[in-house]
Amino acid sequence: MQKIRSGTLAALFFGSIFTPALPLIAAPSPVEAIRASALTDAVAMDFTEGLTTEIGPRPAGTPQEARARDWAVAKLKSLGFTNVRAEPYTMPVWLRGRDEAHVLSPFPQNLMLAALGNSASTPEKGIEGEVVYFPTLADLEAAPEGSLKGKIAFVSHAMHATQDGSSYGYFGATRRQGPSIASKKGAVAILIRSIGTDHHRQPHTGVQMWADGVKPIPAAALSVPDAEQLARMVARGQPVRLHLTLTSKMLKDQPSGNVIAEIPGRDPKAGVVVAACHLDSWDQGTGAIDDGAGCGIVAAAALQAAKAGALRRTIRVLMAGTEEVGGNGGRAYFDAHGKEPHAMAMESDFGADRVWRVDFRLPQGHEGLASRIASGLAPLGIGTSRLPAGGGSDIEPLVKAGIPVIDLQQDGTRYFDIHHTPDDTLDKIDRDQLQQNVAAWAVALFEIANAPESLGVN
Amino acid sequence: MQKIRSGTLAALFFGSIFTPALPLIAAPSPVEAIRASALTDAVAMDFTEGLTTEIGPRPAGTPQEARARDWAVAKLKSLGFTNVRAEPYTMPVWLRGRDEAHVLSPFPQNLMLAALGNSASTPEKGIEGEVVYFPTLADLEAAPEGSLKGKIAFVSHAMHATQDGSSYGYFGATRRQGPSIASKKGAVAILIRSIGTDHHRQPHTGVQMWADGVKPIPAAALSVPDAEQLARMVARGQPVRLHLTLTSKMLKDQPSGNVIAEIPGRDPKAGVVVAACHLDSWDQGTGAIDDGAGCGIVAAAALQAAKAGALRRTIRVLMAGTEEVGGNGGRAYFDAHGKEPHAMAMESDFGADRVWRVDFRLPQGHEGLASRIASGLAPLGIGTSRLPAGGGSDIEPLVKAGIPVIDLQQDGTRYFDIHHTPDDTLDKIDRDQLQQNVAAWAVALFEIANAPESLGVN
Repeated sequence: MQKIRSGTLAALFFGSIFTPALPLIAAPSPVEAIRASALTDAVAMDFTEGLTTEIGPRPAGTPQEARARDWAVAKLKSLGFTNVRAEPYTMPVWLRGRDEAHVLSPFPQNLMLAALGNSASTPEKGIEGEVVYFPTLADLEAAPEGSLKGKIAFVSHAMHATQDGSSYGYFGATRRQGPSIASKKGAVAILIRSIGTDHHRQPHTGVQMWADGVKPIPAAALSVPDAEQLARMVARGQPVRLHLTLTSKMLKDQPSGNVIAEIPGRDPKAGVVVAACHLDSWDQGTGAIDDGAGCGIVAAAALQAAKAGALRRTIRVLMAGTEEVGGNGGRAYFDAHGKEPHAMAMESDFGADRVWRVDFRLPQGHEGLASRIASGLAPLGIGTSRLPAGGGSDIEPLVKAGIPVIDLQQDGTRYFDIHHTPDDTLDKIDRDQLQQNVAAWAVALFEIANAPESLGVN
Repeated sequence: MQKIRSGTLAALFFGSIFTPALPLIAAPSPVEAIRASALTDAVAMDFTEGLTTEIGPRPAGTPQEARARDWAVAKLKSLGFTNVRAEPYTMPVWLRGRDEAHVLSPFPQNLMLAALGNSASTPEKGIEGEVVYFPTLADLEAAPEGSLKGKIAFVSHAMHATQDGSSYGYFGATRRQGPSIASKKGAVAILIRSIGTDHHRQPHTGVQMWADGVKPIPAAALSVPDAEQLARMVARGQPVRLHLTLTSKMLKDQPSGNVIAEIPGRDPKAGVVVAACHLDSWDQGTGAIDDGAGCGIVAAAALQAAKAGALRRTIRVLMAGTEEVGGNGGRAYFDAHGKEPHAMAMESDFGADRVWRVDFRLPQGHEGLASRIASGLAPLGIGTSRLPAGGGSDIEPLVKAGIPVIDLQQDGTRYFDIHHTPDDTLDKIDRDQLQQNVAAWAVALFEIANAPESLGVN
């Protein structure tokens, strides 16, 4: 049973004592009631369905993201949130053009690929070059300087699925650093095996930033079957020549913006609880698991947590306008609000599959709060770890500033089958698992927003 | 234990009596030896890997199919087949151009789709129209004549997976007949939900033929997630307008050809056993499950069946040059060879997953042969049905002419996840299941080719 800590909530709860209790059936605690209600939540799916259907793809800084912003403001108002507004900023935008690859010899055929964020553009008529194959990123790093002059580097480093998503950090370096390394060694372009765990002809895009002083080159990810096909061709020992057309363009100072919505708390001095997600998506899919669902989860959970009445602290939903291409949304939020008292920052940005673990990073002396949250989550099958929470991109500046953070870790086993591909669509979301997320978030937000502990604010 | 029926084979078998037998371990029968050897077969995978890697997509009547033909002739010679040759014919060819769809209003975004075979071409700049939604093909059929004038018909009839693939016959009518029905009612174009069972952004193409007197219109399949997306848009009640660009062209009298390879039998009068597959593929994938694997299976199985020496009948491998777009290969084979004595026709053209059932259509009095085949297949987990065998497209003219036929039915549960999509690639093939196919085919070919029964020939 969950201990009751708030006088108001105790009054709400014991109010039910007027109804004659059935023998052996105790009235639910507030946490039990929230959990039960959230497990049948309809808001998260409705939000995700609406955003992905009515807006679809919404790359940051584009007119589609602007439509998503307007859509979210209207939706959050209709759901009863307070202080709903967009907070604009500007940013540079990279836009995809045509993504085409053709094997010229020895085995003529097309390959499927997608340019990576900030890829340089080829001319309209494309470029040609011979492939130099590297099984891993370390092999590319070991290539002598200048050895790739005029060549197309191909790094086939293969990622496998992990529940905690940790393989993305390691293998994702092929996407993040591979292009700069290849350029430094003279390559005219780089192709990587998609940073993904599926076997579909769906290339995984994603951002990469050019290292200082490095000349941008065309950079793209082959789908996993295409990367395996190219590796088989290379293995036959004859030179493999490709024609690549990867057109793209960069725009300066495009409008983007965060969407903010609140459920005001009773105690303005107790600090806000930020529940974050991001509204932008990559351009290939409709951003269902990344991160429409995250926005649906945090909005639905905030409503579920406050269903029975105002909480001590304000819950502030932050739907960042720009996560995928550099975290501009989180930085803009911190610039505008970093000096306000924050009691907690949390983010949902790892799909819609079930929460399986909770990690904490709380001030000393807050073990009681962690324990109450853990016991509220345990009936949802969520275990508590001893690993420190790290937060997500959109709350990174808050976390760096020392704001407490809790991670409700989602099961990432199938996340990288879909992430950043055309396949990121609504049908990938499992309603039961989405509702379990809402329940976990609602329980956590309720405990945090109502906690008598200071959370470092007072 | 398999009964021994052939003097030659008995001699082969009892030849081993010179080796002192170990107590309690009987020497394997010929069928046991074939089955065991075929379960470790490497030829089928090697063939499929080579064809899909070195040729890739190979639409009938194109230069890629010509390369596939040359490749197969060389490969079959190197494997030791006899009388290996290509038998040319000509055919009309439909060629895909650009496949693009964009929702103009109310929810602007792109949709992923693929033109169907024999689709009319839109102009280069595309066409526009309002969507009229039909949940099923019957709903389209029920629309009044002329009611679709200027509209884009959208039929969302959804297929689900079946082990025997029977749902393709029923739901495939949406692709086969839908375009002609929509054109008759005045539609400017038709979109169908892909005839497929996956949820990836991979549209399933496939052939459709215009009914007599019907004006061809642009016709395409949306991927399943895109069809569901469009249905959700329509369900919101506002008119949905699309821009479609589906360019394509038709060429007359292009060269195609069948590839034939034999393992000669001892008794030329006993009739040939045709083991068929098709060499052409759709253009989107590399034709691994449809039908590279089928060609790998029949070639490998013929070699395994004859490993211990010549069989009574000639096994003739028929790799048809044109199956996908109208069965021209099977007809050309029948025109050239239909008058030769044929003892049996079989085809492998349903992927690479395991054989789970055997169906027979044999002349009266051949129950003993069916029983021997059934008992040879049972250790592979294959049950015998009472359903009549029907054969495949490439042997259809033979079957119609009354040639006996046996179907080694493959598990189709996941076949229509992949069929006719870009996803038809080598990585979808499970080596163990492919080898089980080779074993089933080798056992069946051995029993058929060596059968003392007439099979209607003598």
